[in-house]
Amino acid sequence: MRRVAIINYGLTKVDKHWKKSLRGLFGDAAKAALNNSKVTNLDALIIGNMCASDLSDQNNIGALLADYLCITPATAFRVEAACGSGAAAVLAAYTAVASGMYDVVMTGGIEKLSDGVGRDTTLSLGKAADAEYELFYGSSFVSLNALLMNHYMHIHHTPRDAFADFAVLMHKNGSKNPYAQLPFEITREMVLRSDKIADPITLYDCAPVGDGAAALILCPLEEASKYSDNYVEISGLAGATDTINVSSRSDLLSFNSTVIAADRAYKMAKITPRDVDVAEIHDTFTITGAISLEDLGFSEKGKFNKLLAEGAFEPGGIVAVNPSGGLKSRGHPVGATGAYQIVEVAMQLMGDAGKTQVPDAEIGLAQNIGGSGSSTFVTILRRSR
Amino acid sequence: MRRVAIINYGLTKVDKHWKKSLRGLFGDAAKAALNNSKVTNLDALIIGNMCASDLSDQNNIGALLADYLCITPATAFRVEAACGSGAAAVLAAYTAVASGMYDVVMTGGIEKLSDGVGRDTTLSLGKAADAEYELFYGSSFVSLNALLMNHYMHIHHTPRDAFADFAVLMHKNGSKNPYAQLPFEITREMVLRSDKIADPITLYDCAPVGDGAAALILCPLEEASKYSDNYVEISGLAGATDTINVSSRSDLLSFNSTVIAADRAYKMAKITPRDVDVAEIHDTFTITGAISLEDLGFSEKGKFNKLLAEGAFEPGGIVAVNPSGGLKSRGHPVGATGAYQIVEVAMQLMGDAGKTQVPDAEIGLAQNIGGSGSSTFVTILRRSR
Repeated sequence: MRRVAIINYGLTKVDKHWKKSLRGLFGDAAKAALNNSKVTNLDALIIGNMCASDLSDQNNIGALLADYLCITPATAFRVEAACGSGAAAVLAAYTAVASGMYDVVMTGGIEKLSDGVGRDTTLSLGKAADAEYELFYGSSFVSLNALLMNHYMHIHHTPRDAFADFAVLMHKNGSKNPYAQLPFEITREMVLRSDKIADPITLYDCAPVGDGAAALILCPLEEASKYSDNYVEISGLAGATDTINVSSRSDLLSFNSTVIAADRAYKMAKITPRDVDVAEIHDTFTITGAISLEDLGFSEKGKFNKLLAEGAFEPGGIVAVNPSGGLKSRGHPVGATGAYQIVEVAMQLMGDAGKTQVPDAEIGLAQNIGGSGSSTFVTILRRSR
Repeated sequence: MRRVAIINYGLTKVDKHWKKSLRGLFGDAAKAALNNSKVTNLDALIIGNMCASDLSDQNNIGALLADYLCITPATAFRVEAACGSGAAAVLAAYTAVASGMYDVVMTGGIEKLSDGVGRDTTLSLGKAADAEYELFYGSSFVSLNALLMNHYMHIHHTPRDAFADFAVLMHKNGSKNPYAQLPFEITREMVLRSDKIADPITLYDCAPVGDGAAALILCPLEEASKYSDNYVEISGLAGATDTINVSSRSDLLSFNSTVIAADRAYKMAKITPRDVDVAEIHDTFTITGAISLEDLGFSEKGKFNKLLAEGAFEPGGIVAVNPSGGLKSRGHPVGATGAYQIVEVAMQLMGDAGKTQVPDAEIGLAQNIGGSGSSTFVTILRRSR
């Protein structure tokens, strides 16, 4: 299997981009990825997206974007794994390059929710759940996670405040990120007093959804220096699934898909959780962040709040968690989120992360969840400088 | 790059499966693929689908189906390239195995249109076109192809009857296929006198859309004999794109995506069009079939009708075209169609094709189009017995 590098990237700010079309928004990210690179040809475009069919009346966005980027006749297709679409696309692009079938591949994710005037964005996002056994009965994404949060507090005797404190740290980080959707600091009180969405989840426990696009260019590691002086290796990656409906699981306080994907990715990269310097984790809600920290091996079960209070998830601690601000503050452009995370980790390892830079980051991890834990994709990057 | 084999397959009849759920329908195909095989573990599920979000309120069907098939924690995701989703999924699965990252992978396609009571199936299918520059102005899939058919008849002075005769051959073939949606013979007069859909396209120029599921199991060629006595090699495959909107093309009577994907696949398989014994081509409309025959190198431009009349596309001719009946008679289960085609070619090479069997088929080709030629995936199989 050929080793694979990320040689360049591009991001747009996560926002409500009313004035940008679906193709125009991805074009901005793709242009940024191509502009300061020596890449002159793309063999394929493998793109993550969840909601374009529902909200922009557009499928076939592989061909749409290949056309818009003027890279036809490159091979192009879309990958979808709900909120995990971005990292799933990167995994498909990884095997495309690792196999030897393609050399230079653009991958990433695009989500344009603001097209959906008069359309039901909540229903569109709910399609990540089980349509027949969850959605049909009125479950929404937030109500399922509210069940988990209540259960977590009950089993682990965790104070409500701890979840608020996680949100506070995310906003502190995101306030320094120029690509963040909500780049401002918040307080514990703001979280606790914000509107109830689905008890006990309040507005500031929730990640905002938004429009965004992230592009990455992959090539064989041994050819990376031809294209760039500064690149990173994808040293481990894996996907794993669990039951699609939450009620079928034996343990509600752990995402088996994350545990198994992380284990596979750690083994492939030949590292342990202790080796990870920086991690972008999938905190759709503060409860999702807490469970993810534990499932990835950064905290014992039920102890994330203790470590959080000790500063263990900040630079100099166990692992710098979500220097981007995470889904909570950077925003959650659904099918693009996993691609954002991988770009952000790459930027950290390349030393390109500006005010969010974690000193001396050598190994980074991105964890991208689809549905309420029904799939997880874990990607591990290693600095190549 | 590891060589890759198809070791088993399963199909459902293309039909209106009102009594089957999305997952249940794919389950039938997957069960058929697993039942008479020695496969005990699947590492991944890579599934093609276009319309489940619109018509079944279901995204995340990688996880949904992995769960239903009890193969969690296998990696799973969906691939979408409009009507080309099935073959695009097989391409992604091919690189997954060829790379060495996955050993035994299930791929295929599923489409369940009959869930969409009161929903707009025509709009859902139209999302393969350019939403902003075609769909918005009222173009439908059939109206775009009607333009092509008029133009073809004008440029090549081709009689209307020739297209009807193509449909007649497809139905003759499909009448012997137990999986076909319309397994009956028709006459030239039936085509000409059937309802006008978009002039000059009549009802019997159109492929029927339907519900269907096709599953294939891939593994490294060198391990295929561990699982099966009868398998085929994927000896060439490629995808290519063209402009998404038809009006941007310099030549309306050739799909550049097909020409280039075929050229790449022929080179990879080290063959020419003359070496192909059996082909499943993407005849959404009779005009699409005609253009495809020429683009794949089976006919000179504007001459398909002459060859058709000579029997060149029947067993013993240049190439046996669509012994399954093609989209026209077997049916067009949209995101599953490409997977059907690849299964049907595999069945021919394995000698499993029953009453549709082409004698001594050694090399077969499947051509799967997404949109009105905006992407094409060509897959070439070789007999390994």
